[in-house]
Amino acid sequence: MAKQARAVRTRRAVLEAAAHVIGAHGYQAATMAEIIQRAGVTKGAVYFHFTSKDALARAVVTEQSRPFLPQVSESRLQDAIDFTHRVALALRSDALLQAGTRIAVETTFSEDPLMPYRAWTDIITTMFTEARRNGELLRSVVPDRAAEFFVAAYMGVQLFSRAATNRADLPERVTALWRHTLPGLASPGALGHLDPQGRSVPAAV
Amino acid sequence: MAKQARAVRTRRAVLEAAAHVIGAHGYQAATMAEIIQRAGVTKGAVYFHFTSKDALARAVVTEQSRPFLPQVSESRLQDAIDFTHRVALALRSDALLQAGTRIAVETTFSEDPLMPYRAWTDIITTMFTEARRNGELLRSVVPDRAAEFFVAAYMGVQLFSRAATNRADLPERVTALWRHTLPGLASPGALGHLDPQGRSVPAAV
Repeated sequence: MAKQARAVRTRRAVLEAAAHVIGAHGYQAATMAEIIQRAGVTKGAVYFHFTSKDALARAVVTEQSRPFLPQVSESRLQDAIDFTHRVALALRSDALLQAGTRIAVETTFSEDPLMPYRAWTDIITTMFTEARRNGELLRSVVPDRAAEFFVAAYMGVQLFSRAATNRADLPERVTALWRHTLPGLASPGALGHLDPQGRSVPAAV
Repeated sequence: MAKQARAVRTRRAVLEAAAHVIGAHGYQAATMAEIIQRAGVTKGAVYFHFTSKDALARAVVTEQSRPFLPQVSESRLQDAIDFTHRVALALRSDALLQAGTRIAVETTFSEDPLMPYRAWTDIITTMFTEARRNGELLRSVVPDRAAEFFVAAYMGVQLFSRAATNRADLPERVTALWRHTLPGLASPGALGHLDPQGRSVPAAV
């Protein structure tokens, strides 16, 4: 294996080990020693990629959303609904997403305390901004403020679902989140065409 | 001081010490030793009232909402709005409320994982149920499900506000939460009379 490919693989193994340890014990209780042990690589290899637990946390929160690039269809509001359902299903088993939640609620990075939320608010802001151009939003809705509200509410809903059912009922709760918020987001013309359960997502169990 | 009054005062001192320590370091990192030291009472006195950190956490989450009994007016939906604004203002400085948040997001009590949310969902369910009787809710809204959604969303909003501004902007974000959710909760007749900023609450800063 080429040197660079090996480095990429090692970095990924460390990141996933960190996500598992943080997801299991929380960010504050997680130690570099346990992360190094779980990754199965040398201490030197870990510190080559990440100089501290803080650096690992930053990588988790900036990279957790990458596999979930939203689709682009004629309805950006429906794209947003579908996107949040895909993330909900993944949250049940995706170590990076689960660790990202622990980091968001336990930690605030002093120079950018909103970092754990930023990738999500950026994605939703883009979709809401394009929904505005398509005439899908109520005139009173401000896309970036609405995106901040939505991401915050989604965080609360998935924490509640974790407490209620270890996230088994998260798809239903995400549907309920949209049912309760779409009348305050979508224009009357768009509202009738939107499916709060998401398209091409397995029915809520 | 009578023996019973002294016991009540000691119990309260321990509870507030626990809230301060948990609010500062998180639930998992908090230790009984630090709580005992902060309370300024004997170890025996602490364990007389609370047999474990877990018992302290239970007391925090069941007692945090007691000072916030909602008012009862002709509009139970407006009462709910006002109630959430009063809690938002208190969250900036109330040690029990801040500790309650840390416990809710870090801990799940195995026999009742929703315990940290329960007092809040009970209060909001009562108000939404009475709002339904007053004709203030949309027919599609189910009071207890809507209350669970709302409490979950509120938890996310206050966590986001903590990250954004250490809760300085929480009143504005609670107003935004109501602006985005009232159209999916309130009947058209009620909607025009509700003030999402709350009555008799200082203007958001």
